[in-house]
Amino acid sequence: MNFASDNAAGIAPAVLDAMVSANHGHALGYGNDDLTRAVERSIGEIFERDAAVFLVSTGTAANALSLAHVAPPWGGVLCHAQAHIMVDECGAPEFFGGALKLIGLDGDAGKLAPALLEAAIARHTGHRPHAVQAAAVSLSQASEAGTIYTAAEVAALAEIAHARGLKVHMDGARFGNALARLNASPAELTWRAGVDVLSFGATKGGALAAEAIVIFERASADTMHERRKRGGHLLSKHRFIAAQFAGFLADGNWLTWARHANRMADRLAHGLARHSVAPVWPVEANIVFVVLPRAADARLRAAGASYYARDGAPEGIRMAPGDVFARLVTSFATTDTEVDRFVDLAAG
Amino acid sequence: MNFASDNAAGIAPAVLDAMVSANHGHALGYGNDDLTRAVERSIGEIFERDAAVFLVSTGTAANALSLAHVAPPWGGVLCHAQAHIMVDECGAPEFFGGALKLIGLDGDAGKLAPALLEAAIARHTGHRPHAVQAAAVSLSQASEAGTIYTAAEVAALAEIAHARGLKVHMDGARFGNALARLNASPAELTWRAGVDVLSFGATKGGALAAEAIVIFERASADTMHERRKRGGHLLSKHRFIAAQFAGFLADGNWLTWARHANRMADRLAHGLARHSVAPVWPVEANIVFVVLPRAADARLRAAGASYYARDGAPEGIRMAPGDVFARLVTSFATTDTEVDRFVDLAAG
Amino acid sequence: MNFASDNAAGIAPAVLDAMVSANHGHALGYGNDDLTRAVERSIGEIFERDAAVFLVSTGTAANALSLAHVAPPWGGVLCHAQAHIMVDECGAPEFFGGALKLIGLDGDAGKLAPALLEAAIARHTGHRPHAVQAAAVSLSQASEAGTIYTAAEVAALAEIAHARGLKVHMDGARFGNALARLNASPAELTWRAGVDVLSFGATKGGALAAEAIVIFERASADTMHERRKRGGHLLSKHRFIAAQFAGFLADGNWLTWARHANRMADRLAHGLARHSVAPVWPVEANIVFVVLPRAADARLRAAGASYYARDGAPEGIRMAPGDVFARLVTSFATTDTEVDRFVDLAAG
Amino acid sequence: MNFASDNAAGIAPAVLDAMVSANHGHALGYGNDDLTRAVERSIGEIFERDAAVFLVSTGTAANALSLAHVAPPWGGVLCHAQAHIMVDECGAPEFFGGALKLIGLDGDAGKLAPALLEAAIARHTGHRPHAVQAAAVSLSQASEAGTIYTAAEVAALAEIAHARGLKVHMDGARFGNALARLNASPAELTWRAGVDVLSFGATKGGALAAEAIVIFERASADTMHERRKRGGHLLSKHRFIAAQFAGFLADGNWLTWARHANRMADRLAHGLARHSVAPVWPVEANIVFVVLPRAADARLRAAGASYYARDGAPEGIRMAPGDVFARLVTSFATTDTEVDRFVDLAAG
Repeated sequence: MNFASDNAAGIAPAVLDAMVSANHGHALGYGNDDLTRAVERSIGEIFERDAAVFLVSTGTAANALSLAHVAPPWGGVLCHAQAHIMVDECGAPEFFGGALKLIGLDGDAGKLAPALLEAAIARHTGHRPHAVQAAAVSLSQASEAGTIYTAAEVAALAEIAHARGLKVHMDGARFGNALARLNASPAELTWRAGVDVLSFGATKGGALAAEAIVIFERASADTMHERRKRGGHLLSKHRFIAAQFAGFLADGNWLTWARHANRMADRLAHGLARHSVAPVWPVEANIVFVVLPRAADARLRAAGASYYARDGAPEGIRMAPGDVFARLVTSFATTDTEVDRFVDLAAG
Repeated sequence: MNFASDNAAGIAPAVLDAMVSANHGHALGYGNDDLTRAVERSIGEIFERDAAVFLVSTGTAANALSLAHVAPPWGGVLCHAQAHIMVDECGAPEFFGGALKLIGLDGDAGKLAPALLEAAIARHTGHRPHAVQAAAVSLSQASEAGTIYTAAEVAALAEIAHARGLKVHMDGARFGNALARLNASPAELTWRAGVDVLSFGATKGGALAAEAIVIFERASADTMHERRKRGGHLLSKHRFIAAQFAGFLADGNWLTWARHANRMADRLAHGLARHSVAPVWPVEANIVFVVLPRAADARLRAAGASYYARDGAPEGIRMAPGDVFARLVTSFATTDTEVDRFVDLAAG
Repeated sequence: MNFASDNAAGIAPAVLDAMVSANHGHALGYGNDDLTRAVERSIGEIFERDAAVFLVSTGTAANALSLAHVAPPWGGVLCHAQAHIMVDECGAPEFFGGALKLIGLDGDAGKLAPALLEAAIARHTGHRPHAVQAAAVSLSQASEAGTIYTAAEVAALAEIAHARGLKVHMDGARFGNALARLNASPAELTWRAGVDVLSFGATKGGALAAEAIVIFERASADTMHERRKRGGHLLSKHRFIAAQFAGFLADGNWLTWARHANRMADRLAHGLARHSVAPVWPVEANIVFVVLPRAADARLRAAGASYYARDGAPEGIRMAPGDVFARLVTSFATTDTEVDRFVDLAAG
Repeated sequence: MNFASDNAAGIAPAVLDAMVSANHGHALGYGNDDLTRAVERSIGEIFERDAAVFLVSTGTAANALSLAHVAPPWGGVLCHAQAHIMVDECGAPEFFGGALKLIGLDGDAGKLAPALLEAAIARHTGHRPHAVQAAAVSLSQASEAGTIYTAAEVAALAEIAHARGLKVHMDGARFGNALARLNASPAELTWRAGVDVLSFGATKGGALAAEAIVIFERASADTMHERRKRGGHLLSKHRFIAAQFAGFLADGNWLTWARHANRMADRLAHGLARHSVAPVWPVEANIVFVVLPRAADARLRAAGASYYARDGAPEGIRMAPGDVFARLVTSFATTDTEVDRFVDLAAG
């Protein structure tokens, strides 16, 4: 019963197989190999765009490099106050971005809302050169609350951003989960809706350590080669990140796995709700937030269930003393059995 | 016949096996798993020291993070003018080090010499706060010229450095190759000789992407957690870097493989020398530098041999027009057959 | 009628005289002159402490260098959400601090409150290495709302900070104004209350461009020499910043001028209040915030009064359409006449 | 007898007068005042170009901000190995430039030579993304050896740079001295010869602390507003830097003073040469390098002469034990009398 993180799962067998397959003969290092080229092309095809693709091994690297690309050192990046880039990356975006500024906005259920975004941009525009100028918006898809933006919602936010000269970044560490839920294509959910740069995650979805920075305007992308290299993020045996993506993308694996993880989250949410433990936010990807009664939490921990408790529930959520605000994350590897057992234990 | 780089080889089977073995069940992410702890301890045992160990996935990251640790942003790091950190990392040490300064020194056969080091430290000490102050020395073991420092040589340089308050870093991307050649223990070649921080490389030796930053004084190491994270170099499925090291270190694999690579380099050097293509520098690790006559180069290229040509031979080496100053690198995967075929083709 | 900023005033005659006096003969550059040494000592005497003193020419430099000194690049600096360092320095603290993070807190009338500070420190402590760790607190004395911290208030905040290992910085761009109001000595209001580093401003108080970074623990101060130099903030003809301080500090000028500016603010506030234009926040230094009725604003502008309007009044303040939330700043140069004329015009 | 530095002189009376004149009434801060605008325009007129002008208070700031403007963080800036930016600014260019790399070149008498520049650019071009790419050249005018580049020499170097896509920066801390010597206009010696950005110094020439960053292509200059502000280099009472330039430029003062300083250097050089103490390098600006015999040095020091000794004479210069390689700098304030006395003492 591991619901601690989709990072806690291992490598999906098809990904590992692809790595094993790639392990023959020699290949030029640093991305100058055929497999890398092929994977970069594949990603372009999936997004129906001649995009520039840069593979790296962590989501933090993908986000930080992307943000450095879309905002100058004296620019502000608007994001949700609870976004991963804001609270979980130890200042990596600021570091890679030459000391740019992240500006956290409130927003229900982990999402930015158009009116608040518009007001925030206005607040961070003008008063030059004293004030940091809003330069980019970063959206988490899926969000840290397990919710997702529809293509129309992305487009509405991106339109506001672009109208004021801001770029749009999407942190897609769980992009597959969002996509699997929506009736939309990768293109519709990104550049057609106004996303300029995507951190396209494979790690949480089943890879070992593989993320792609996808810059939809190739013309602007050239300096990313240097950014990645001097960040120490250009692997010498680069073909093995490419191989991970090859296995991840083959036969639509990534969406199959994401759909599975989402289904497990649904099953978990429904199961818990039947026992009056309703999800705090809409369950739209592979994350379920619930308030676990003290006794349920104790039973689950005793049975070895693994999950993280968050500090304090969001406003408006009632918690009794000892209750736990729990984050439950499913993955490609989650099984019906462990979900059902978790629900049974929670039910008591 | 691939002699382009030890990075061009794939993953040694024992390393890949260890990764496959690690791929079961769940594990906490970000290094909080048992395998990571075990590997960190193993590395300490190998070095006979309660060292702080930080695993990362590239040599550039290991070097840049290490140098940021040993020198302040206004410090100078003295290294060979042709060191990897100086010419091949796109400014990563400067970036991670908050704009520290690399100061390149001349030195025969890729190595720093005590007298020149001493003079350089003197030249970069004083005149505060106008001049960047010498803060650290970085030694490449093996060097970019394929030569190595004996424990006594390391100790002589480290003594000079320490006497003036400088720290000593060792870029050990090919530490195994150096160690395999010398009659010395890992401890003797590092902290006992005065090395403060080691970039301990496994990638070139047979891993996929695994390097360890080894800080011999644990007390000073704590901030490396933040440095690594905000550099984007803390993997979420961290246990798979640990697994690589587990396979690399098991049964002395790393030294067996390094010894093999060194032997292949020797065989290559001796073979070529028999045909009057003598190595330019002593062959002490797994790299051979030779001047290939134009015709030999043409024959080798036609037969599909892969290797890099360097611009211009070093001073004192005669080259005819069309001759090529070639760098030939062997690895754990190099075979007698390809070495012999290379020699035969070179011989004409 | 200039109430735009205390920066809008010129140089106080005594400061200019001191500069003229210093302009004879030669002096070693870069702070190695007698006048600089004397002024550094004087500042120490004023604060009753053997402090390390570094003169620079802007408040932004003083703040940014100070914050870089008290927080590591991966540290968080807690400050009021409207603090100058947060909204008016274009990211200078982040830039000098190697991409540290400013964390803005709410607080009535521009001041931090102990309970909120304590909660914020708790929120930004732990979850290493993912979360930026609270490393320092910065207090503005006087605050951007024109309010001041008593010595007891500083001590209460500093105690909370120190108890959790944080350093305390004070942005004293208007330190003189605060001090002039309180019955306290410079020492009582700073290091005796727990301030570790002070940006001690003279510019707003009557100098041309002179600020002092005062590090109360001399032992930790040494690297500030390099920080200042590489920030381009070590003047070659350094004695002329020193001369400004000499004139500023002589005969208690700075406190006389600050007291005058405060009195002008009081006169302005009382005058306006008599006409139902009451100050929004307590007038404790040399800044008065009021809501000017539309007609009053029009009359004042027509008469050439200079002052800044702020966007939106704070919560709880009623404004009619067209009303202006105005910031009125007095200085050493403000006269009774212009205050009275301003009041008359506002009264209509 | 002060020949330590042109920084050791004070403020030229006309500059101080201009500051005093500017000290009346109020003015908007941060460069939004009439005097600043007028001075920016004047500088454009002097250079016959609608250039963007940014005033700052130190040469280090002017250089570091300029270099950050012309080279990306992963770019290399080629300069003389003894250039001020390389050896005397404590890494400021690297810091402001986001960790860019300075690459020092040899060159006779402090000057870069076309052939060496061309070779260096070639050496630092290509091998992307591993190698830092040559991005800009910085010329010191006058050089640290007291020599100057003619307009034709600047043009030859700039042509090489521009042909390879590099920008050209000129460190003109002593631009006036160079110009005063040559039969050329400011425009001819800068943008007409290919200089893209100039650090135009007034401090050494007679100001207190005033330097102008002159960006000849205004279209590219906009971000300098943010660079300067976040570097802490936008003065609040900015009009007083402008006033310094007003006094400096009025009536051609700057050239008159530079011509005087140059003449003093000539007189010194000729005087010493008559006594067999010939200048080591051509005396073309206001600096004279000589080998002072031990006895002469002792006499001069005893008589209170102030000047700096440099470590080791350049190659090819004979020095007896105890001889001193001395740098003698003249200024607007140097008198015939002190020159003659110095010569007499040196002569014995």
